[in-house]
Amino acid sequence: MSEPPVLELIKQADRAISAEDFDALMKFYADDAVLVVQPGQLAKGITQIRKAFEAIAKHFGNTLQVTQGQAQVIEGAGTALVIMETLLHVPDTPEPITRRATYVFKKDPNRGWLCSVDNSYGTDLLETA
Amino acid sequence: MSEPPVLELIKQADRAISAEDFDALMKFYADDAVLVVQPGQLAKGITQIRKAFEAIAKHFGNTLQVTQGQAQVIEGAGTALVIMETLLHVPDTPEPITRRATYVFKKDPNRGWLCSVDNSYGTDLLETA
Repeated sequence: MSEPPVLELIKQADRAISAEDFDALMKFYADDAVLVVQPGQLAKGITQIRKAFEAIAKHFGNTLQVTQGQAQVIEGAGTALVIMETLLHVPDTPEPITRRATYVFKKDPNRGWLCSVDNSYGTDLLETA
Repeated sequence: MSEPPVLELIKQADRAISAEDFDALMKFYADDAVLVVQPGQLAKGITQIRKAFEAIAKHFGNTLQVTQGQAQVIEGAGTALVIMETLLHVPDTPEPITRRATYVFKKDPNRGWLCSVDNSYGTDLLETA
C-alpha cells in the first residue's frame, strides 16, 4: 500500500524489459537519461538507450527475464536514489545473476518520476575504474 | 582540468567536514536534501543535516578527517550519480575507514550542482534492510 511509487515503476520497467516492449520501457526514462550498458560504456539519451536494450535482449537470446530483490529508496530534493538487487534470469544458468544496482530518478513536473541515471553495476563500477 | 565539477564540490565539502565549517558545508546541499546518517536513520533538510554533522564530529572526538579515493560520476537529465570511495580518518585507527558511497546531485538553475541525496553507505544499505 505504502510502497514508494518509484519501486512500482521499476517493477513495470523490468516487466517491459522481460517482454521486450521497448516502447513501453522508454516511457520510464527522461529524454536525456544515461544508462551504464557495461562498465566504461554509456548509452546517452532515449535513442541510444533503446538500442542498448535491443542489443542486450539479443545478447541473451531473447530470453532475459528481470526481477527484483531487496530494495531501498531514499528521496531528497525532487530526486530519488534507488539501491536494489536486480536479478537477471538467463538461459543455461541455474541461479539468476544478482546485481546491486543504483538508479537515480527525478520528479518531472509533467511526467512524474523518471529514471535519469540507470547503473545496474552499483558501486562495483569502482573495481573497473 | 576536465575533472567533473561535482567531484571538486565533494572535495570542498569534505574539507569543510574536516574543518567543522558547517556553514560552508551546508552550501553544498539542496534545502530539502537527505543524508543517510546511518542505516535506517535519515536526516531530512538542512537543519537536520547540520545537526547530524555536528553529532558525527563530536562522535569522532572532533578529529575526523575525510578524504577521497576512487570515484566515478555519471551525469544524466540534470542529475549526477557519484560513486566514490570515502575515507574516514579517525583517532586510534591505523587505517582509514573506507566506504563506497553513493551521492546524488541535481543541477539547480540558480545555485548549480547541489547534493540531494547523501548516502555514504552505498549498496551496503541492503545488508541492513
